[in-house]
Amino acid sequence: MAEIRQNPATKEWVIIATGRVKRPEDFVRDEPEEALPHHDGNCPFCPGNEGKTPPEIFSNKGKDGKWTLRVIPNKFPALEPNGQIDREEASNFFRRMDGLGRHEVIIESPFHDASLGLFSLKETLEIVDAYKRRYCDLITDNRFKLVTIFRNNGKGAGTSLEHPHSQIVALPVVPVHVRNRLESAMRYYDDHGHCVFCRMIGMELKSKKRLVLKNDDFIAFEPFASRVPFETWIVPLRHQATFGEISKKEMKGLARILKSLFEKFYRGLNNPAYNLIVRTAPTGDEGEEYYHWHIQVIPRMTTSAGFELGTGVYINVSLPESSAEFLRKV
Amino acid sequence: MAEIRQNPATKEWVIIATGRVKRPEDFVRDEPEEALPHHDGNCPFCPGNEGKTPPEIFSNKGKDGKWTLRVIPNKFPALEPNGQIDREEASNFFRRMDGLGRHEVIIESPFHDASLGLFSLKETLEIVDAYKRRYCDLITDNRFKLVTIFRNNGKGAGTSLEHPHSQIVALPVVPVHVRNRLESAMRYYDDHGHCVFCRMIGMELKSKKRLVLKNDDFIAFEPFASRVPFETWIVPLRHQATFGEISKKEMKGLARILKSLFEKFYRGLNNPAYNLIVRTAPTGDEGEEYYHWHIQVIPRMTTSAGFELGTGVYINVSLPESSAEFLRKV
Repeated sequence: MAEIRQNPATKEWVIIATGRVKRPEDFVRDEPEEALPHHDGNCPFCPGNEGKTPPEIFSNKGKDGKWTLRVIPNKFPALEPNGQIDREEASNFFRRMDGLGRHEVIIESPFHDASLGLFSLKETLEIVDAYKRRYCDLITDNRFKLVTIFRNNGKGAGTSLEHPHSQIVALPVVPVHVRNRLESAMRYYDDHGHCVFCRMIGMELKSKKRLVLKNDDFIAFEPFASRVPFETWIVPLRHQATFGEISKKEMKGLARILKSLFEKFYRGLNNPAYNLIVRTAPTGDEGEEYYHWHIQVIPRMTTSAGFELGTGVYINVSLPESSAEFLRKV
Repeated sequence: MAEIRQNPATKEWVIIATGRVKRPEDFVRDEPEEALPHHDGNCPFCPGNEGKTPPEIFSNKGKDGKWTLRVIPNKFPALEPNGQIDREEASNFFRRMDGLGRHEVIIESPFHDASLGLFSLKETLEIVDAYKRRYCDLITDNRFKLVTIFRNNGKGAGTSLEHPHSQIVALPVVPVHVRNRLESAMRYYDDHGHCVFCRMIGMELKSKKRLVLKNDDFIAFEPFASRVPFETWIVPLRHQATFGEISKKEMKGLARILKSLFEKFYRGLNNPAYNLIVRTAPTGDEGEEYYHWHIQVIPRMTTSAGFELGTGVYINVSLPESSAEFLRKV
């Protein structure tokens, strides 16, 4: 019999299709990995092509004076930074605003064939540091209500450029998708008097069945109601609502857990396509007791179809407990 | 400057990325259409292989005694029909239920290479009739709370079998994704005293900018806040909350608009991958004044990535007004 499970934080149901469940090994990417060149003269993110990108926001330099990480505005931004919030009167049936916002790119390495799964701890910490610096800078602009950091790994995850990079978008609105998650967490808090994510951490540490990694500051686990095979959540142990609240020490813990997790993804699953999303509370919600920022990693091994789009219920053909065991052993 | 638009019914924002907007012609599928055989001996949905499917629920027969449409239980169902609702105590942090439900397949034609875009009006009406018959039968089982009908067209839309078919899933829960949409429509109703979808129909008929098709019973248009290129909504003109309320006459109107729309998709866009979803209120909500069932067609010409997954905000690189104009002219 299949099983229907609910995520206690989001209230989303998933169907664990035990009748057609696959083994973790079945999800290892089997096509030969594309051998990317170490340097690609046509790639705008490769050294030597700095002039092809908009002027950088900042970069880190190594001892040899060469850059190791660059942050730039997106050359083809979804949103543009100039202008004021121009929200038409709510009396209009169709509501629209100017596309105000920020869209930035973090070029994570000078090497075209680098991969988050193979970065050193130092390199991973540089990425986390760039996330924090840009997040904390962008939230000082009070036109922006939500700052979302994400990473698309591989063509199957929607990336157009293979050179390793993350993206940051600052939005002038809090989207309903995010509001719904905040509201769900708020309702749990109002019912129980504590944060649903803190409780989830406690449950996962106690049962250990879905645990993948843990250090002094972070935990990584396969959620009880994982929507897709190898969905993984990385959650700070200390309660904090927004990503900007991460401490220096915790940044190191995050870098360590990211490095270990993506090394497991790279070696154990052959570098699958995935999206990484930093889910944070909106700007202004610092210190909020009901929400707890976390990273959601969504591998793209299956294609969502009409049922998922129409109901929001995902049919997962893997057992989170088996996926976690598989990843622990890699 | 990009534009941020909000769907008045769902409150979802989309970004119309005017800076990188493409022409409607750019979305025409250019790979040569796979020439499917008229009959495939290995296809479980082709005539002669009826024994490979579970016993049929019903079929329609032509004058020659051969079937023209078959409805069968899914051989590999996501949910299974036997058992009672077994919901664990809400005191458990992790909530689960047995995977109770129905998962059926409507084989729309005996011909492997048939396509909704090329069906006759009679064939399309047979499909609509099958939707209605199965919907009305499934809602009589009070264990089921939501009956979702959907259709995945093409591999890019997540289908595993190319033989033309639709699917129906009856769920024992109302998913949060659906609840959120109901709540959004309810809030509009409470604020304004009328149905947001009825108002949307009025606005689209008045402006005509995003109108694709209209007949006595239905309208098809590109929503003001289309999430993807060529997203299309098909909405009954008469207010009705659930799909089961469709009348005999309206079924003909729906068949006509479906046939015309997918002929346009087939000829104008070269049969793109898409998902079709019948969005209805849950069972028991018949006659409800705040919700209005409709069909959402979501072409899969672009790949959603971390930003869309993390914020629910889609970046649309097409203008709904241009897409509508393009489809009107096909």
